[in-house]
Amino acid sequence: MQYFVGEQEYFKGIGKIEFEGKGSKNPLAFKYYDAKKKIAGKTMEEHLRFATAYWHSFCADGTDPFGNSTIDFPFRKADKYANAIAKADAAFEFFTKLGTPFYCFHDIDASPDYEAVSEYEKTYHKIADELLVRQKASGIKLLWNTANVFSHPNYMNGAATNPDFNVVARAAVQVKNSLDVNVKLGGANYVFWGGREGYMSLLNTDMKREQEHLARFLTMARDYGRSIGFKGTFLIEPKPMEPTKHQYDYDAATTIGFLKNWGLEHDFKCNIEANHATLAGHTFSHDLQVCADHGMLGSVDANQGDSINGWDTDEFPTNIYETTQAMLVILRNGGLGNGGLNFDAKRRRNSTDLEDLFIAHIGGMDSFALGLEVAGKILEDGVIDSFVKERYSSFDQGEGKKFEDGKLGLAELAELGRSAKIEKKSGKQEYLNNLLNSYLFG
Amino acid sequence: MQYFVGEQEYFKGIGKIEFEGKGSKNPLAFKYYDAKKKIAGKTMEEHLRFATAYWHSFCADGTDPFGNSTIDFPFRKADKYANAIAKADAAFEFFTKLGTPFYCFHDIDASPDYEAVSEYEKTYHKIADELLVRQKASGIKLLWNTANVFSHPNYMNGAATNPDFNVVARAAVQVKNSLDVNVKLGGANYVFWGGREGYMSLLNTDMKREQEHLARFLTMARDYGRSIGFKGTFLIEPKPMEPTKHQYDYDAATTIGFLKNWGLEHDFKCNIEANHATLAGHTFSHDLQVCADHGMLGSVDANQGDSINGWDTDEFPTNIYETTQAMLVILRNGGLGNGGLNFDAKRRRNSTDLEDLFIAHIGGMDSFALGLEVAGKILEDGVIDSFVKERYSSFDQGEGKKFEDGKLGLAELAELGRSAKIEKKSGKQEYLNNLLNSYLFG
Amino acid sequence: MQYFVGEQEYFKGIGKIEFEGKGSKNPLAFKYYDAKKKIAGKTMEEHLRFATAYWHSFCADGTDPFGNSTIDFPFRKADKYANAIAKADAAFEFFTKLGTPFYCFHDIDASPDYEAVSEYEKTYHKIADELLVRQKASGIKLLWNTANVFSHPNYMNGAATNPDFNVVARAAVQVKNSLDVNVKLGGANYVFWGGREGYMSLLNTDMKREQEHLARFLTMARDYGRSIGFKGTFLIEPKPMEPTKHQYDYDAATTIGFLKNWGLEHDFKCNIEANHATLAGHTFSHDLQVCADHGMLGSVDANQGDSINGWDTDEFPTNIYETTQAMLVILRNGGLGNGGLNFDAKRRRNSTDLEDLFIAHIGGMDSFALGLEVAGKILEDGVIDSFVKERYSSFDQGEGKKFEDGKLGLAELAELGRSAKIEKKSGKQEYLNNLLNSYLFG
Amino acid sequence: MQYFVGEQEYFKGIGKIEFEGKGSKNPLAFKYYDAKKKIAGKTMEEHLRFATAYWHSFCADGTDPFGNSTIDFPFRKADKYANAIAKADAAFEFFTKLGTPFYCFHDIDASPDYEAVSEYEKTYHKIADELLVRQKASGIKLLWNTANVFSHPNYMNGAATNPDFNVVARAAVQVKNSLDVNVKLGGANYVFWGGREGYMSLLNTDMKREQEHLARFLTMARDYGRSIGFKGTFLIEPKPMEPTKHQYDYDAATTIGFLKNWGLEHDFKCNIEANHATLAGHTFSHDLQVCADHGMLGSVDANQGDSINGWDTDEFPTNIYETTQAMLVILRNGGLGNGGLNFDAKRRRNSTDLEDLFIAHIGGMDSFALGLEVAGKILEDGVIDSFVKERYSSFDQGEGKKFEDGKLGLAELAELGRSAKIEKKSGKQEYLNNLLNSYLFG
Ligand SMILES: [Co+2]
Ligand SMILES: [Co+2]
Ligand SMILES: [Co+2]
Ligand SMILES: [Co+2]
Ligand SMILES: [Co+2]
Ligand SMILES: [Co+2]
Ligand SMILES: [Co+2]
Ligand SMILES: [Co+2]
Repeated sequence: MQYFVGEQEYFKGIGKIEFEGKGSKNPLAFKYYDAKKKIAGKTMEEHLRFATAYWHSFCADGTDPFGNSTIDFPFRKADKYANAIAKADAAFEFFTKLGTPFYCFHDIDASPDYEAVSEYEKTYHKIADELLVRQKASGIKLLWNTANVFSHPNYMNGAATNPDFNVVARAAVQVKNSLDVNVKLGGANYVFWGGREGYMSLLNTDMKREQEHLARFLTMARDYGRSIGFKGTFLIEPKPMEPTKHQYDYDAATTIGFLKNWGLEHDFKCNIEANHATLAGHTFSHDLQVCADHGMLGSVDANQGDSINGWDTDEFPTNIYETTQAMLVILRNGGLGNGGLNFDAKRRRNSTDLEDLFIAHIGGMDSFALGLEVAGKILEDGVIDSFVKERYSSFDQGEGKKFEDGKLGLAELAELGRSAKIEKKSGKQEYLNNLLNSYLFG
Repeated sequence: MQYFVGEQEYFKGIGKIEFEGKGSKNPLAFKYYDAKKKIAGKTMEEHLRFATAYWHSFCADGTDPFGNSTIDFPFRKADKYANAIAKADAAFEFFTKLGTPFYCFHDIDASPDYEAVSEYEKTYHKIADELLVRQKASGIKLLWNTANVFSHPNYMNGAATNPDFNVVARAAVQVKNSLDVNVKLGGANYVFWGGREGYMSLLNTDMKREQEHLARFLTMARDYGRSIGFKGTFLIEPKPMEPTKHQYDYDAATTIGFLKNWGLEHDFKCNIEANHATLAGHTFSHDLQVCADHGMLGSVDANQGDSINGWDTDEFPTNIYETTQAMLVILRNGGLGNGGLNFDAKRRRNSTDLEDLFIAHIGGMDSFALGLEVAGKILEDGVIDSFVKERYSSFDQGEGKKFEDGKLGLAELAELGRSAKIEKKSGKQEYLNNLLNSYLFG
Repeated sequence: MQYFVGEQEYFKGIGKIEFEGKGSKNPLAFKYYDAKKKIAGKTMEEHLRFATAYWHSFCADGTDPFGNSTIDFPFRKADKYANAIAKADAAFEFFTKLGTPFYCFHDIDASPDYEAVSEYEKTYHKIADELLVRQKASGIKLLWNTANVFSHPNYMNGAATNPDFNVVARAAVQVKNSLDVNVKLGGANYVFWGGREGYMSLLNTDMKREQEHLARFLTMARDYGRSIGFKGTFLIEPKPMEPTKHQYDYDAATTIGFLKNWGLEHDFKCNIEANHATLAGHTFSHDLQVCADHGMLGSVDANQGDSINGWDTDEFPTNIYETTQAMLVILRNGGLGNGGLNFDAKRRRNSTDLEDLFIAHIGGMDSFALGLEVAGKILEDGVIDSFVKERYSSFDQGEGKKFEDGKLGLAELAELGRSAKIEKKSGKQEYLNNLLNSYLFG
Repeated sequence: MQYFVGEQEYFKGIGKIEFEGKGSKNPLAFKYYDAKKKIAGKTMEEHLRFATAYWHSFCADGTDPFGNSTIDFPFRKADKYANAIAKADAAFEFFTKLGTPFYCFHDIDASPDYEAVSEYEKTYHKIADELLVRQKASGIKLLWNTANVFSHPNYMNGAATNPDFNVVARAAVQVKNSLDVNVKLGGANYVFWGGREGYMSLLNTDMKREQEHLARFLTMARDYGRSIGFKGTFLIEPKPMEPTKHQYDYDAATTIGFLKNWGLEHDFKCNIEANHATLAGHTFSHDLQVCADHGMLGSVDANQGDSINGWDTDEFPTNIYETTQAMLVILRNGGLGNGGLNFDAKRRRNSTDLEDLFIAHIGGMDSFALGLEVAGKILEDGVIDSFVKERYSSFDQGEGKKFEDGKLGLAELAELGRSAKIEKKSGKQEYLNNLLNSYLFG
């Protein structure tokens, strides 16, 4: 199959996106992403494990806090269920034309929401069956799904951390069903993003109790998931703020501390979003590295923010400095395991041409492919890694090694310090920045 | 003794600062801080445990990245040792005139630095003896001391996290001696502030190894401290950035996660600085609450930042909203234990009158005293705490209680959720903000 | 009339909000705002000229980028026109119960939007007639209106700065009609807020040409307004970013520079919003002062932002430090002229009780009333103003005066400088901060 | 002459830096900067007009707010005057080895400061003579000089905006002498950077009077400069904050508005520093474009900031996205005129190898050279510029043209708008971002 087409073709005039390589002027072709090209023993496709996000690409219509919908979806139908089916057709057509082997969704991205729980559940499972049909037909796989327990007004004060037990229970409905659906669809991971899990004001909040509830809820979800045969990774997606004034999963370090505090670190890892890292005052690669250092790098929401604007702009990644440094962390980590690079990114609301959705994704895929290529070269050359290794070499043997191995006491260490010969050793930051440019630009 | 005077009186014309109460127009009197006044069963003095910081008040001379020294110290002497003695005299005169029962210092604030370790050590202990004499004479106590392992060029690449083992060992000299001095002076706490413990660039940094070294170093310091009879609390002071691009002890959550990861949470707590919390994207009260929730609120560096400027302005605290909300957390925490409120704050470099040092501290003390008074009233009234308790009351019995107690599985919870009746419950944030104003302004 | 009631009473159970004064525990009463109380020769009402904003209070339903509507309006009707009439009834009931003598609106807040221009126009004028009836019945006046030329997808690339002339012309329809309606309703001011007047990316933008178009458009609007008898002030509301990445009216200084550049400074002034000033890196009082210094302080959007969150939170003002410092600028400016304090503020989306809308506004009004009272006291005492005047007194006579009067050349000035005696003069910032607290807290 | 050597060679072992081109692994060679290579009719050297900054490169010793000096200068001498001469020798050796045809300095970078004015003046002129000798010997030219009226404690409350007339006069001494020296050395520009021209607190500041003094001072300096034959451009360097809480020359728009307000726009232009633009909430290219649009782009301080850290990090530019977009603005502006690219950048304080100073500059020069090359290609291709031109084409004729020419009134425009056909036109931002990458990476 060239690409999936459902009841009708929605992205007419756009065929399978091909690799044309550097120099191509075709906006609908890849310049750097060559799926089957091998880097360090694996194909680009295997390294990058790209996923398309259902919500931004097939649900979000350009509405923003100051403006109405600008995006027309060719598949839109008045009937909720028919709309969901047409959307699924369009989505799989898009996945296969574009060539992202995975996809991700929230329950109510893919399946309509209903006030009546039974209708929600029944429809969700029906839609899941339909998605499964399309997965089989297309070979596309589910990277992860999640439950949207933040948009409905029920969740305005939180979901698992809501002060009202009824809401916590209501959130469990969506999470349980989403886990059921995940297992049905063979999801590689299951995600929690704490949309409203945070506070608007400390004056009305018992932060400790809310976090205990969150830990309890996650534990229950973990146990349930394992009980129904979910073998994948549970993922937490950190974000510092927005929509709440302060979110509990602030950043990677906070999230990992929380997970370890509650004994969840063996089932849970982090899903790092670039734009969330930067909003928290870190670089993207910093938060990736924090996860890698704890063995908790699960997956990535591949987007970029705006260094000037203090909200979640969720732009498609195009900055090759960032993709290269991200891929360096990922390659050194031995890859993403069963995680992937999910484009939690939206075209700008004034990017209204049908092709813009493709162009935006092509840019994101090309950017990570180029980042992978450069990072691969850097690691192959080994100049930077050798430089770093050498920098710490005084700990590789002798007293330094004893220090690392815990065989020195402070008094002994101080005694060594009394006669230590200290030479000024340059950090060579400008040299390394120039070197990075020479990998990027030849 | 009215106040301590050493070899000579340095702050002539300024006597003991008295409480004159509201309406006083005397800039050299307290309007709100009435040391012996009781709030909730303890005197203000016992609650607030104010400390003066040696570095800002008796060392920092107004130099900034764009300008030279502006502050003249009346005690300054050419000879290093004589200068240290005169400084100690001036400091204890200041403590006792002002009425801060505690003080804090870095090794080289109080005692001169020397390239020769033996001279550094010998002098440090001599100066410590001199400080002890003055402590006894004045009744002033040591809240904490610490080692400055960030100013000397040796530490330009870090101290405990330096890539060069020699530097790590050299840092141990200062930490060991500072612990020895702490025990001699009966310090209530010992502080680590990770001046250069962070990175300037990820390109030249092995973050994991550096953090392992940090943990190792802290463990050794803990063991040594305990071995020599230190019974107080070890404190870590979080800060997100500055002087390094990214500091390892980013904020309270990161620091607590780190301490727990390495089994240090029983000996270590956090020293929260207001300005560092805000630089990390949190409110001051947020970071205090995070510590309180983990039983790890150790002490406080009482200052304030500028919401517009992105560096560590270390201003004296004058914002009563912030002091009130801080004191709410502290009172609910049952106080600061053996911690205190240390003014890690500096007058502006153009506040060059001798009296400005007093006025600045008076403002800080008055601000926390007023915050304490308002917080005490809020807790006594109980309106806010009752509101919050009521908000979570669905977890106090029935199914909510079972949820908290871990007696529900996700499927059961979801089953409850299927029939949950959810009422919209206002968070009442504007009501609470207005209420807070009514406590503050009558 | 106690308060206005239209076809039916919408805020039942809430009567006219009364002044009860300090110590009142009634959340639905004023503690500080005593409309007829005189401060410095004018009543609070005359000083503050409060306005309610139609959009936040009667249109915005709690939708945010991550969540659906949470706010139920008691007046909502399915029919667009009937809804507008009911909304007007509710609004005037609210204005009169609350006691804000002014109101403000965008065209499509008050009157329905239609794709057909003629229907839009016809309905707008009909609704204006209805508003006029209610103005007369209630005594409420129009502080300003404006045209919403940013929400409709037509404006996704800008209104007056749209690259497509057709859109510019379409925007003119709304502005022209809004000016017509303004004159009909006796509006005191007319506002431009540059919703989409800015850029998303410099790569696709001709900033110079867009700004020339903006100037042209404003000039035409000014000329048209004057031609139909508009005697009030045209206002520009600066904002640095959001919804566009970069807005042209970044802050007060940028806006004033733009207006002067195009000769618009005699008809236009600034409408300063607190939250926009802080997003631009200024304090609220800074941007007010910039306007006052240029004689261009027109009106105020009275709200507050969150020092941590980098988007437009539009909170109700409750910070008395900010309101006091704002009122200091306003009082020194001789008041707001025909401007006022408009609450461009929204209750949090989880403040869903009907009374919350009142409570939020009461808090805002009380906060500015208290700020006015404190500012009035500060100016009456004159201590701060005398301090500042004295600080510059060397320019009041002698060579300093000659410098100010332009009677010295640089060489002469340098010659004076060669023998200048410079004494260190403290800026006394801590003293002034403490003094401010003593005005605020007694 | 290969390169200048004074009394002795200071950078031994480092010769003239040569262009080796892409692929070179030599950290002491250029990879992209090929001085004589032609781009769009001019050599790289002519386009870029690089300057070395005296202060960062030969004065700043690594001291930061938390640490002592780390950088050893090979030329340092105990005697102030001898030190200045040796520094000049080292500087010209550096300029000529590196190949920056221009340099820049503050008075007290190059010449020692003295409390006695006459000694300051006399020495300054002697040093200027020495610099002139070296200029002639080497062919290096002065891009600009300036007066440091911010470091000395005299200026702690401002220089031209100091509340004390004596300080204003004292500042005039330095400015007058610096102008005299500028003329002697044939400086192409003269710069004002408002180090302390701003406020620490609005409570003690008369902002209006201070800005009037600033305008007066600049006017006097302009008149004096012209009177002694200075034909170059006066430059103002905007910066939003640091060292003061709020600087008057906040950003390009503020500065241009100020200059126009006081009739200084014909003699003054802006010197835009990348890191200052970003601290003010703009991109570097934004502030350059603002200047270009007003015909006021004078010169550039070529550095880069850190998107995470909120202070002036003054890093060497290495981000090719930023240099490319900067060069696009500069090329479209027809170049920098008599301005240039001055490296107001400092190596990190732990970059302590002698060669690091060269490596850092090489990286900066290569980055702008590569940016120039890419920008030249973009303009030569014309794809982006055509895209933008086309986007605004509705204003090139017909009614759109009449609008631009001021031949339409608002009522006419609205009448056109009543029947305007509006098509949705994509902004194509993702397409343009991808296109930019394809120019950068092939
Ligand atoms: Co995400
Ligand atoms: Co996001
Ligand atoms: Co600090
Ligand atoms: Co501190
Ligand atoms: Co706003
Ligand atoms: Co507004
Ligand atoms: Co700078
Ligand atoms: Co500069």
